[in-house]
Amino acid sequence: MQRLTKKRSKKAGLPPGTLVHIGDRKKADVKIAVIDYDESNFYEKEFKSVEECFIFKERPAVTWINIDGIHHIETLEKIGDCYGIHPLILEDILNTDQRPKIEDFGNYVYIVLKMLYLNDKGNDIVSEQVSLILGENFVISFQEGLEGDVFNNIRERLRSGKGKIRKMGADHLAYSLIDSIVDNYFIILEKLGERVEFLEEKLVSNPTTDILQSIHHLKREMIFLRKSVWPLREVISFLEREDCALIDKTTRPYFRDVYDHTIHVIDTIETFRDIISGMLDIYLSSISNRMNAVMKVLTIIATIFMPLTFLAGVYGMNFKYMPELEWQWGYPLALLLMLMIAAVMLLYFKRKKWI
Amino acid sequence: MQRLTKKRSKKAGLPPGTLVHIGDRKKADVKIAVIDYDESNFYEKEFKSVEECFIFKERPAVTWINIDGIHHIETLEKIGDCYGIHPLILEDILNTDQRPKIEDFGNYVYIVLKMLYLNDKGNDIVSEQVSLILGENFVISFQEGLEGDVFNNIRERLRSGKGKIRKMGADHLAYSLIDSIVDNYFIILEKLGERVEFLEEKLVSNPTTDILQSIHHLKREMIFLRKSVWPLREVISFLEREDCALIDKTTRPYFRDVYDHTIHVIDTIETFRDIISGMLDIYLSSISNRMNAVMKVLTIIATIFMPLTFLAGVYGMNFKYMPELEWQWGYPLALLLMLMIAAVMLLYFKRKKWI
Amino acid sequence: MQRLTKKRSKKAGLPPGTLVHIGDRKKADVKIAVIDYDESNFYEKEFKSVEECFIFKERPAVTWINIDGIHHIETLEKIGDCYGIHPLILEDILNTDQRPKIEDFGNYVYIVLKMLYLNDKGNDIVSEQVSLILGENFVISFQEGLEGDVFNNIRERLRSGKGKIRKMGADHLAYSLIDSIVDNYFIILEKLGERVEFLEEKLVSNPTTDILQSIHHLKREMIFLRKSVWPLREVISFLEREDCALIDKTTRPYFRDVYDHTIHVIDTIETFRDIISGMLDIYLSSISNRMNAVMKVLTIIATIFMPLTFLAGVYGMNFKYMPELEWQWGYPLALLLMLMIAAVMLLYFKRKKWI
Amino acid sequence: MQRLTKKRSKKAGLPPGTLVHIGDRKKADVKIAVIDYDESNFYEKEFKSVEECFIFKERPAVTWINIDGIHHIETLEKIGDCYGIHPLILEDILNTDQRPKIEDFGNYVYIVLKMLYLNDKGNDIVSEQVSLILGENFVISFQEGLEGDVFNNIRERLRSGKGKIRKMGADHLAYSLIDSIVDNYFIILEKLGERVEFLEEKLVSNPTTDILQSIHHLKREMIFLRKSVWPLREVISFLEREDCALIDKTTRPYFRDVYDHTIHVIDTIETFRDIISGMLDIYLSSISNRMNAVMKVLTIIATIFMPLTFLAGVYGMNFKYMPELEWQWGYPLALLLMLMIAAVMLLYFKRKKWI
Amino acid sequence: MQRLTKKRSKKAGLPPGTLVHIGDRKKADVKIAVIDYDESNFYEKEFKSVEECFIFKERPAVTWINIDGIHHIETLEKIGDCYGIHPLILEDILNTDQRPKIEDFGNYVYIVLKMLYLNDKGNDIVSEQVSLILGENFVISFQEGLEGDVFNNIRERLRSGKGKIRKMGADHLAYSLIDSIVDNYFIILEKLGERVEFLEEKLVSNPTTDILQSIHHLKREMIFLRKSVWPLREVISFLEREDCALIDKTTRPYFRDVYDHTIHVIDTIETFRDIISGMLDIYLSSISNRMNAVMKVLTIIATIFMPLTFLAGVYGMNFKYMPELEWQWGYPLALLLMLMIAAVMLLYFKRKKWI
Repeated sequence: MQRLTKKRSKKAGLPPGTLVHIGDRKKADVKIAVIDYDESNFYEKEFKSVEECFIFKERPAVTWINIDGIHHIETLEKIGDCYGIHPLILEDILNTDQRPKIEDFGNYVYIVLKMLYLNDKGNDIVSEQVSLILGENFVISFQEGLEGDVFNNIRERLRSGKGKIRKMGADHLAYSLIDSIVDNYFIILEKLGERVEFLEEKLVSNPTTDILQSIHHLKREMIFLRKSVWPLREVISFLEREDCALIDKTTRPYFRDVYDHTIHVIDTIETFRDIISGMLDIYLSSISNRMNAVMKVLTIIATIFMPLTFLAGVYGMNFKYMPELEWQWGYPLALLLMLMIAAVMLLYFKRKKWI
Repeated sequence: MQRLTKKRSKKAGLPPGTLVHIGDRKKADVKIAVIDYDESNFYEKEFKSVEECFIFKERPAVTWINIDGIHHIETLEKIGDCYGIHPLILEDILNTDQRPKIEDFGNYVYIVLKMLYLNDKGNDIVSEQVSLILGENFVISFQEGLEGDVFNNIRERLRSGKGKIRKMGADHLAYSLIDSIVDNYFIILEKLGERVEFLEEKLVSNPTTDILQSIHHLKREMIFLRKSVWPLREVISFLEREDCALIDKTTRPYFRDVYDHTIHVIDTIETFRDIISGMLDIYLSSISNRMNAVMKVLTIIATIFMPLTFLAGVYGMNFKYMPELEWQWGYPLALLLMLMIAAVMLLYFKRKKWI
Repeated sequence: MQRLTKKRSKKAGLPPGTLVHIGDRKKADVKIAVIDYDESNFYEKEFKSVEECFIFKERPAVTWINIDGIHHIETLEKIGDCYGIHPLILEDILNTDQRPKIEDFGNYVYIVLKMLYLNDKGNDIVSEQVSLILGENFVISFQEGLEGDVFNNIRERLRSGKGKIRKMGADHLAYSLIDSIVDNYFIILEKLGERVEFLEEKLVSNPTTDILQSIHHLKREMIFLRKSVWPLREVISFLEREDCALIDKTTRPYFRDVYDHTIHVIDTIETFRDIISGMLDIYLSSISNRMNAVMKVLTIIATIFMPLTFLAGVYGMNFKYMPELEWQWGYPLALLLMLMIAAVMLLYFKRKKWI
Repeated sequence: MQRLTKKRSKKAGLPPGTLVHIGDRKKADVKIAVIDYDESNFYEKEFKSVEECFIFKERPAVTWINIDGIHHIETLEKIGDCYGIHPLILEDILNTDQRPKIEDFGNYVYIVLKMLYLNDKGNDIVSEQVSLILGENFVISFQEGLEGDVFNNIRERLRSGKGKIRKMGADHLAYSLIDSIVDNYFIILEKLGERVEFLEEKLVSNPTTDILQSIHHLKREMIFLRKSVWPLREVISFLEREDCALIDKTTRPYFRDVYDHTIHVIDTIETFRDIISGMLDIYLSSISNRMNAVMKVLTIIATIFMPLTFLAGVYGMNFKYMPELEWQWGYPLALLLMLMIAAVMLLYFKRKKWI
Repeated sequence: MQRLTKKRSKKAGLPPGTLVHIGDRKKADVKIAVIDYDESNFYEKEFKSVEECFIFKERPAVTWINIDGIHHIETLEKIGDCYGIHPLILEDILNTDQRPKIEDFGNYVYIVLKMLYLNDKGNDIVSEQVSLILGENFVISFQEGLEGDVFNNIRERLRSGKGKIRKMGADHLAYSLIDSIVDNYFIILEKLGERVEFLEEKLVSNPTTDILQSIHHLKREMIFLRKSVWPLREVISFLEREDCALIDKTTRPYFRDVYDHTIHVIDTIETFRDIISGMLDIYLSSISNRMNAVMKVLTIIATIFMPLTFLAGVYGMNFKYMPELEWQWGYPLALLLMLMIAAVMLLYFKRKKWI
């Protein structure tokens, strides 16, 4: 399960703009991958130090700098200096405990998103924060670098030059990155949907105790997912509306498309939540039902055998003068009486529809 | 029950505007039916290939192209080229996992709706996506082609030339199509309403375990229905308001009418949800009540027979000196004592209103 | 209980503006009652055919045409023709499955309301749809004609000429009609309030099983009431605001007054809903409490008599060498032991506050 | 407990503006108290008839007419005539079943508030309606006159001439009246808060059945309180905003202060509601817990003694050939066996943490 | 646990602007600490009497007056006089039962916040009210002085002259104070998050009765936290938007940053609430589950031993003619029969999956 809070406390009391990394530190080094392209040219390289890629800044082609591993504070500071990024934004990039948000500084836009995976077991949703800085002719993306990313298709498309992507500007690249992150949510929803359906079937056929655990786990997963996706709605809605100078008019329909997808994701999450809370109701009812069944068995047994045992007890008493005991047919008659009592009881339960 | 998610994942990572069919593929061929009409003329034909119907584009009469079966991507591409439809829209037409929405591109409007049926057994709601493209003098409708459609009445009205429909433009045709889809929701609500009432009566007369299943099923049905209808509100509200150039002023009252119907449908769904959640409460209470009844039977039996059995046990003890055993009237007296104990117990239960 | 849905399906597929009556048909004939008045004149008559009352149309005095029984489609068509009413409005008048709404066509306003009664037994709320058409100098009201109406006071006031009503225009008449419908809601709320209080008291004194039925019934009643009243808020708020040309400035405070009443009705409904849902909680707790009481009785009895019976069983064993059996005081000692065990158990329950 | 509805029905059907008193009638007479003041002068008198105080109308000093007992309709009519108050407002003053509201008629403002008390036992909240009419240089306050009021402090302040109140206009007087009513809510909240805390403690230490009654009673009290206070928010927000001509700019911060208090009261009510609903959950859980405890005792007793009793029964059988019965050590061995069974059972329960 | 209400009642009836201290009185004296700085100068001193620090008022450097202990009313009055603060604001500063709010008086802004701590045991959240008055070149902060504060880092930063803080105006100082209060909320959330996770684990491994108490306690803590933080959103949103003249444009991004943090805190609180309410569901289910388990043990034991005991009872009867008793193999056969009955019962339970 996800940890509920990150160790954000270590930042408390520091002056604003102090760069402190909050999150799980990756062991490997920082990877800086640069792709620089326009319709006719394409250049791709991985750099060791961040200064090497500042040469792309002045060139008119679109530059995509992807930084994998944000814990290296020095790198971040240099980029911030070169591209004139506000210190509070640098602080936010380092702090992986952000909700998705967007900030428009006029000459660049800062976007925070959550890239979601299912972990290896397929049980838990793992979240990785992706920060994007969209400028006039560049996009800088920051990843935590915990796992791979979902951008390989975009790299491939850029290399091959197929589709529109090479013909369009940095805003379209930003759109592509956001789109592939949102598309990935559908994969997670599919997996979760399968799990919901699996639990629903199991709930009907054989409601065991650990189903409750599974339902609760799924519910928490949904709370987590919702928290990651819900604010996205506002983020993308901001990009789609008229008021952002860096987004070209032709790119807007694309953002509207991502917006629709986001709404769809949110809708599906809410549907899942509804269904999961319905499952809890069913689980509780089925417990009560089974308790009922158990109680009925107990009651039937007790109601039949208690009178019989009493009768046997009566004829086991040691009174001197008990005429029945002397009768020739006493014993069979007593057995017959017992049989009749049992039959009457069973009939009563039959009529009450307990058996 | 509806599957919770569609295989949308196969689209993840593809460039925007890539045409991939998401949904259940129909075996049969694509059917292209064209109706071209104005007040005095009427022309209707079914075409094999889509190119044949492009001749209607330049003519002033209203053209309705109905395409049954959207899995044939080539057909879609040709229509998109001919009518200048945005690639993202073509992508949306193919993706049957859309929520109802509307997009206004100035010279045409794209509308997605859900056509709902009850399946053959009458248990489950089946949904088919209908996409409409409304232009100056044409309407193109795309259906998944899984089952028939609800447009036959409109075809009949067009053929006969009765009513206003032949005198008015493409916007009125679009209205008619949407109206017949929304009208069909009422039929489904009627059926579901009957089922709700049936369950309510059964709940009172004989609350069995499978009622819980039925309630849950109905609840999920409602979640599904709601998800299909709720966004429609916004769609039609958009058409009714001032800001869509393709909708004539005289058609607006008609859209307001459909809007009212949609609100009515949503209202009814919410009412059903309220009632269904009330049924769950009743079900749970009735389980508790029956448990109570079972427990009372058990307690009454145990409370009566345990003291009696104990008494019989006492007089079954083998102590040498037990004066009662020697008495002439010992046995009848013991029986009398037992009878009295039972009577006292019964009186106690009577006073407690357990019997 | 109210039927959840009306047979609206018979309209599906018909062209818009087709006049189909949806609702319970009344056997009697249509009654057309006309009242024509200004400050000094008063004229009242009941007509057989609708054409006879068209002469009032051109006169400056205020005309109130009340039509009782809407199933006679021909009558409706003639009125529609004469007063220039949109076909969709005529359709809505016939369809008694409408939610309260208002539509402003500039030269007339169409208002739908629900007139509510308690049925003869006083159990169920019965609803009758009232449609009003307010024009420059006329009001046409359409009733289903299932029962009487709540307008007699207004007729009386018009006849007597007391109060302001004869001095003011058609808008004031419309206000009076709406006001008397809303005032009638208070009577229903009073009755329901009494029932809520009756159930609350019974719940405390003697919670039987059929209380659950009553609570559920009341809850459904509230859902029904709410559905009828909630949209009214918007309707009257529309009339009260500036933008309706047919409402004179001096009439506006009156509509504000009705608006306040409507809010009050809605408030009271919400309060009732809150209280009813609290009653369900209490009911469930009281079931659990009684179960607890039953269980305690069972446990006390079992816990006392099981050890005793066991002891009696031990001394009923037939071993050859059981020294206690031979003792002179064996039997009294055994009885004493049993008594002590019972006393200890009772003390234990006392300390546990079970008895 | 408060009655849920007032006898509003007796007004149904009467023409608007008809003066009918709705509420509990006070036996005593109407009291008319007039205070007339400016910075240097102060005049206070109680009048028998309302005409006597009309002389103050033309004078520039601020006049506060407080009318205690609204059932005297004639008095009301005369005031209405003299000060030109709309008949609908007079009707509202008489109808004590109003929600707090404000109406601005330009030259005067009508405000309805609820003055709340705890009754003598301190159990129930009693509500009294206060109507204020604020004009250019006068405030008329109408009370039901059921109990005293909360205005004594203001009278004292006016008499002594301390503070700002004598230097400011009628709007400040209205503010003072409203403020003292809202301040009084805090006293009620304090009392209810103490009761909530008392119940919480009792719930933990000794959850008896009548706690449920208390919780329910408190919950209803909250519903009632909320209904009285919630609309106040809008009322005072209206007075605080720019658009009321009778409120001077310097008085506005004072109304903002009352507004804050109102929000605070609402906040506290919502907090109480949250806590009370949490208490219900705890109560239900504690019932279940106790049931569990009872069941465990029963099960432990039954599980230990049933096998033992069976064993005793076996050796009580009368078969001719039962070798154990002849053994010298048969009886002690049987007892030992029984002891061992009991020990094993107890160990099992120990391991299961039942004892 | 927090007390639900403060003794606000002692203020009821007093004229507005009367200074009454509401809250827990600190024993120690009032401490007045002044820091006066600009980019190059820094002056810090603690004063005994408040008049001494009025000299800073006219100087252009930024002055921060921190007053620890608000119960000394005289001090407050003097400051109010000197800086021209509205009497209602002084009243609010004294009243520690405020919700967070902001009031803009043009030349100064009044802000109320809640500083939160965990108490020594780490169980309860303790709240201390902080009032800020932000003027052109000064900030006055009022603390209750119950415990230390969270401003030491800011003092240190001011002393050392590191960072931007000395270069910027009073608005940035106000931001820093607010920021350090909000940052402190994250520490509390971390602690509560750990407690939530601890309870979740315990709930799964060993759900004891006192977990319910803990959950309830945590829930109340959340209600309290939410009440303190929720209004903050509006406060900071006000500061961040365009309309406050005292906030410089360059400081606005910083307030946007605090705003994001506040939203994040609120989000986390809501997530915790969701999870806690899920825990209650699990707790209730686990009680039911355990009850089920207990019932099964009871039923199994009863169902096995009741028939056996009956059989033993039958052969313990004293009828003269009971042929089985005379059989050579009667006893072993009876035992065998008993064994078989027990086996059949066990098989039945096995098949029912009860054991």
